[in-house]
Amino acid sequence: MNRFSLNQASIKYATMTEAVAATVDAGIPSIGLWREPVAEFGLAASAALVRDAGLRVSSLCRGGFFTAQEGPARRATIDDNRRAIEETAALGAPTLVLVAGGLPVGSRDLVGARERVRDAIGELEGDALAAGVSLAIEPLHPMYVTDRAVVSTLGQALDLAEQFDARAVGVVVDTFHIFWDPAVLEQIARAGAGGRIATYQVCDWNMPIAADPLLSRGYPGDGYIDFESLARAVAATGYAGDIECEIFNQQIWDTDYATVAATAATRYADLVEPYVTQLQ
Amino acid sequence: MNRFSLNQASIKYATMTEAVAATVDAGIPSIGLWREPVAEFGLAASAALVRDAGLRVSSLCRGGFFTAQEGPARRATIDDNRRAIEETAALGAPTLVLVAGGLPVGSRDLVGARERVRDAIGELEGDALAAGVSLAIEPLHPMYVTDRAVVSTLGQALDLAEQFDARAVGVVVDTFHIFWDPAVLEQIARAGAGGRIATYQVCDWNMPIAADPLLSRGYPGDGYIDFESLARAVAATGYAGDIECEIFNQQIWDTDYATVAATAATRYADLVEPYVTQLQ
Repeated sequence: MNRFSLNQASIKYATMTEAVAATVDAGIPSIGLWREPVAEFGLAASAALVRDAGLRVSSLCRGGFFTAQEGPARRATIDDNRRAIEETAALGAPTLVLVAGGLPVGSRDLVGARERVRDAIGELEGDALAAGVSLAIEPLHPMYVTDRAVVSTLGQALDLAEQFDARAVGVVVDTFHIFWDPAVLEQIARAGAGGRIATYQVCDWNMPIAADPLLSRGYPGDGYIDFESLARAVAATGYAGDIECEIFNQQIWDTDYATVAATAATRYADLVEPYVTQLQ
Repeated sequence: MNRFSLNQASIKYATMTEAVAATVDAGIPSIGLWREPVAEFGLAASAALVRDAGLRVSSLCRGGFFTAQEGPARRATIDDNRRAIEETAALGAPTLVLVAGGLPVGSRDLVGARERVRDAIGELEGDALAAGVSLAIEPLHPMYVTDRAVVSTLGQALDLAEQFDARAVGVVVDTFHIFWDPAVLEQIARAGAGGRIATYQVCDWNMPIAADPLLSRGYPGDGYIDFESLARAVAATGYAGDIECEIFNQQIWDTDYATVAATAATRYADLVEPYVTQLQ
């Protein structure tokens, strides 16, 4: 299980200390962090906590939300993303996850919103290079296109990422968001060939869709995703980074942290690990 | 408003007689029919009813559900689709709408399911040609991929359709299902260039997504879709068929039929008609 990472959002109500303890106790070697709990515990203290626990930090969530028109709010967002890049580096994480953002209030212009996402990444490319951090554009399922992410497919994320240095800008391969795509296997291959897979996340598609569609994610094996074909496709690219499990699900959030960590690890070991290479 | 068609599903609880009356009374020249109410009223009687009312029938919903493994259930589905083709011809409609079907129970194999959709269309191509009916593959929004349609994008629907005679197999351009797609404009152009636009439906994407995601459709103008850019793209292809409004929405279903017909017609006139050519 030496490539598995538990994303902190899977145990949303855990404090930093509790999240690190649950991860270590489950024998999981890596953790994905979120900015809010890190800020609450303190950046330097969080970095020390995970380092002292012997954990890697696989990624930091999240930056992005780049679709606002030019103006003070957009400037504040860009500045905040610069801070997020610094935090990623301070935590020793390779990757900052970016969510594109949805349509501005009153707008129906997806094309314009997507252009502003590209422009924002262009502004941040130099900061990412300087910090040694990869910005990972996360395509979100098309059901989130208006309110959360105007970037919906892996191909579209790659079209964006490929306009920038591969050391600075990559993509998130999150099974929940992209499994439905008829082009998913060829786009995973394309992402790998270009060195653009910044992080790989495993999470199932539960049905029916939850009343709050954000919470429709499940443990691998509880839903409809064929993890084997996707894991084989990622492995074939030579991707050798951590493999995160990030679940937003009210029932799982209401479960004790040790059970969540152990269940996620077991599902990973059963459904994903057999098809990827172990770290040497 | 001489190209507008009211799909019967927008006034779901209306009988055939009520649906035809509401359409005529609103000054709408065309209607989209569904097999269930047509069967209840009688096929020949329904054909006579719409003909005597002076209405065109823009399409019949729906065939498809082609993802079952070989066996008696699949054979029954293919036979039922043959009957649906005959019904389409008997009603004088040019188009039978096909919904691909979701994953069979217990399966996670989207690739195999998609192959069975293609095979089923291959079995029906000759029937469609003989009947002078176009089979319209409808890509459904990716949130329906597991339970309803393994065909999710216009490009994927065209990849399927282009394996068959353009007189027999086309696609549905339904704004609700495809507006999010970064490739939507180029795929509309491709569909038009190949003579594959079998029907064009306008319906908005409401937010938040309804608790039953099937019912998240709205009147044009109530949601987040830019109808102008999509209408211009369809018009640029030379598509000259009817333009349907098909809404599944509990609140609209609970509204009196005359109000629904008038509202749909007004929204069409305001948001779509200015960007398409009138029939001469």
